[in-house]
Amino acid sequence: MTHPGLDRARVRDATLRLALPLARRVGDSHLIDDPELLAAFGKDESHVPPATPDLVLKAQSEAHVIAALQLAAEYGVPVVPRGAGTGKSGGAIPIVGGLVLDTTALNQVLDVDRHNLLAVVQPGLITGDFQAHLEGLGLFYPPDPNSLETCTLGGNAAHNAGGPRAFKYGVTRNYVMATRTALMGGDVLATGTRTIKRAAGYDLTSLLVGSEGTLGVFTELTLRLVVQPTHLSTLLICMGDEPAAGRAIAQIIAAGLVPRVLEFMDGTLVQVLREEGVSAIAPGTGALILAEIDGTSETQVEADTLELAERCEDAGALQVLMARHGAEREQLWAARRLLSEAIKSRGKYKVSEDIVVPRAAADELLQGLRALNEKHSALVAAYGHAGDGNFHVNILWDDPDYRPDAVVDDVFALVWSLRGTITGEHGVGLSKKAYLPKEQSAPLIDAQRRIKHALDPLGLLNPAKIFAP
Amino acid sequence: MTHPGLDRARVRDATLRLALPLARRVGDSHLIDDPELLAAFGKDESHVPPATPDLVLKAQSEAHVIAALQLAAEYGVPVVPRGAGTGKSGGAIPIVGGLVLDTTALNQVLDVDRHNLLAVVQPGLITGDFQAHLEGLGLFYPPDPNSLETCTLGGNAAHNAGGPRAFKYGVTRNYVMATRTALMGGDVLATGTRTIKRAAGYDLTSLLVGSEGTLGVFTELTLRLVVQPTHLSTLLICMGDEPAAGRAIAQIIAAGLVPRVLEFMDGTLVQVLREEGVSAIAPGTGALILAEIDGTSETQVEADTLELAERCEDAGALQVLMARHGAEREQLWAARRLLSEAIKSRGKYKVSEDIVVPRAAADELLQGLRALNEKHSALVAAYGHAGDGNFHVNILWDDPDYRPDAVVDDVFALVWSLRGTITGEHGVGLSKKAYLPKEQSAPLIDAQRRIKHALDPLGLLNPAKIFAP
Repeated sequence: MTHPGLDRARVRDATLRLALPLARRVGDSHLIDDPELLAAFGKDESHVPPATPDLVLKAQSEAHVIAALQLAAEYGVPVVPRGAGTGKSGGAIPIVGGLVLDTTALNQVLDVDRHNLLAVVQPGLITGDFQAHLEGLGLFYPPDPNSLETCTLGGNAAHNAGGPRAFKYGVTRNYVMATRTALMGGDVLATGTRTIKRAAGYDLTSLLVGSEGTLGVFTELTLRLVVQPTHLSTLLICMGDEPAAGRAIAQIIAAGLVPRVLEFMDGTLVQVLREEGVSAIAPGTGALILAEIDGTSETQVEADTLELAERCEDAGALQVLMARHGAEREQLWAARRLLSEAIKSRGKYKVSEDIVVPRAAADELLQGLRALNEKHSALVAAYGHAGDGNFHVNILWDDPDYRPDAVVDDVFALVWSLRGTITGEHGVGLSKKAYLPKEQSAPLIDAQRRIKHALDPLGLLNPAKIFAP
Repeated sequence: MTHPGLDRARVRDATLRLALPLARRVGDSHLIDDPELLAAFGKDESHVPPATPDLVLKAQSEAHVIAALQLAAEYGVPVVPRGAGTGKSGGAIPIVGGLVLDTTALNQVLDVDRHNLLAVVQPGLITGDFQAHLEGLGLFYPPDPNSLETCTLGGNAAHNAGGPRAFKYGVTRNYVMATRTALMGGDVLATGTRTIKRAAGYDLTSLLVGSEGTLGVFTELTLRLVVQPTHLSTLLICMGDEPAAGRAIAQIIAAGLVPRVLEFMDGTLVQVLREEGVSAIAPGTGALILAEIDGTSETQVEADTLELAERCEDAGALQVLMARHGAEREQLWAARRLLSEAIKSRGKYKVSEDIVVPRAAADELLQGLRALNEKHSALVAAYGHAGDGNFHVNILWDDPDYRPDAVVDDVFALVWSLRGTITGEHGVGLSKKAYLPKEQSAPLIDAQRRIKHALDPLGLLNPAKIFAP
């Protein structure tokens, strides 16, 4: 993959010329140019082949970010912003080389304002560390991407990360109130406000969130918080088959219940979990639902828990396990947490897609995926955030020469036929770039390219991602 | 006010040249050129002086909108999209003349998908009509701008309208899942998806919502719905003074209660209401709180209602009135609904600002406003959405020669000192344009102008608004 005007050799040359002036601005101790160390900054958690950057700056301040972006514009050097590298779409891979701008040292909580229910953080702060920090204060930051123990809040914002709790609480975009964002060239925008409502000018905050580091580099995020729920119950529900699980989920939603988690695991995965020795699965189970209800009122959590259980029983639940305390809850979560490791037993190779359908189409989606299991030699297994219609579709195979492209094409065709989208949480990056023009019209992609060009006319910020040539 | 390159005479000439080709595309019966009729399309509900357009198209279809935007680009004619003209900031006033594109005839509900909790509507549909339509289906579209009986959903989206229920349910932007948006030149973008989660490409939907018709014209909106709450209680709480009301509100929020409405009325307004003969106000009342709690569980609504009442009593409430049924509720709302009419008794002239502060700063805001009452000869009175920190500050006076600019300047200076913003729901339009550069930095405004230029390079769509020269 190449980028017009961003020839690999020319980029390397420009980056080498930038190194000394940048060292003069930021100090040479924060620059990495050792080829052995550079490789670690060239990969993420996608299946996209890594690429090695020419230079890495571990920024220690917003001033470092500004210096890098000023000099990059001057020297024509591509810049790839990077958090913890836990992305699933190749968004942080420096495909044309250049400078990787690592923000992980910018990891401070700058302010927690409990009266206004907001916090100001630096982008390199680890999501789980932030949540732990808040817990002691009775506050709660809901977004919970699977990688929360290692991923950063800046990366979450760049990719609009979700997680199981998004069903009730929404995704990262719903929590970013304001940013400080450095543009290519070094201008810093203070977007958004510390107020809940705002109507002055365009919503650049929402535009920047999910732009995958192609429009700007976050140097500060103001995040909305909620009051820590004081009561929580967890349910693991064994359903006879996938359609029964689909019915239960539809009835839960139609009843107006809003569990914070409403996760689904398909028949293939139930089988995998059985083989792993998970004991909580009743005989005859063909699909699992994991639900969590939280709130600040014990009465309400209790009432909603019982109603959710009833809805599942109406839909034919074989077994409903409920837990209200730490250790019990962990037992029920064990099945879900095992999954992404356990599923590897089903194939030497795996790709995982992150598709979303309108939630009422979940049944049809699962039916279509079962048909793909028949059609292809690879195994197709799905689990995910059923309440949102957001499923992680795993494609597994053993033959090193097998290419999963035909399965992926079929999965996406199925998703589009149900009016869904190819990514709910992971973004487009490099891995889904070829598919975007099949989902979005030429004028829609053109409008996005024009916005990209408006904010980064040199095309140097995270080039070749999303829709760039 | 003029726009460079959009000379009034030249615009009129270009619009007259466009009339016949447009009539050939859309039929002449949908075009208005009678000067007496045109005037009605030149004003809104702001205090900005009206301006008369040269031509009006009452679009009957998306094809009409496209035709208008294609020909406008060709002939160099400014286009001002218009809903019901209930805006409060002059956003729909055709300040440079040209074509007004009236979308009120595009008023159909195209789809209600109860399983996916969404509806597809045309932009000219009246907000209240849509809500009434949903009520029979057990569904609920929460945004409730004060003008909901007359305003349109397209106008709500263009201005990111809020309303009292925003405290629990959020503003219009939180409900727009997808749009069809026609750009100047006639390209139509299908932005967003019918799914709850999405991460493919930039969030153009959020960018378009709140862009005040300067980037595109909505021809279709896909709106998220929620299940109709089945239980509702209303409380009118009499507090001794404004600081006590501020304490009560802070305690309600800190307790994790999320009433759908949490409205505040200041001491001046209590006096106005007393004179209007509102009987529900206890002796000694210096501020009022109106709250509503809703939900799908009677137990929960009841428990939250009692807890809210307790928090107010802890903060020194003089009287708490509760209502659970239609007629009782209406009595409690009567005070709030009377306000915008009743307050006119306090001055022959009025401007109303729509400011927001971080919610914990509400006390300081009200204290600052009391000081402005002392300082200026005009009367300053505030009511509004206390839960959000969004207050409608009314400035009233009798002398026809009095100019309220110094009061407005002081109000905004106070707002900025508390890290607030000059508009929470009404937008910038023409009326707040001069203030935007005092709230937002030059690079931030420049970034917005570049985005405007990227999507409307001819500068013809709703020109001279927000930040345009």
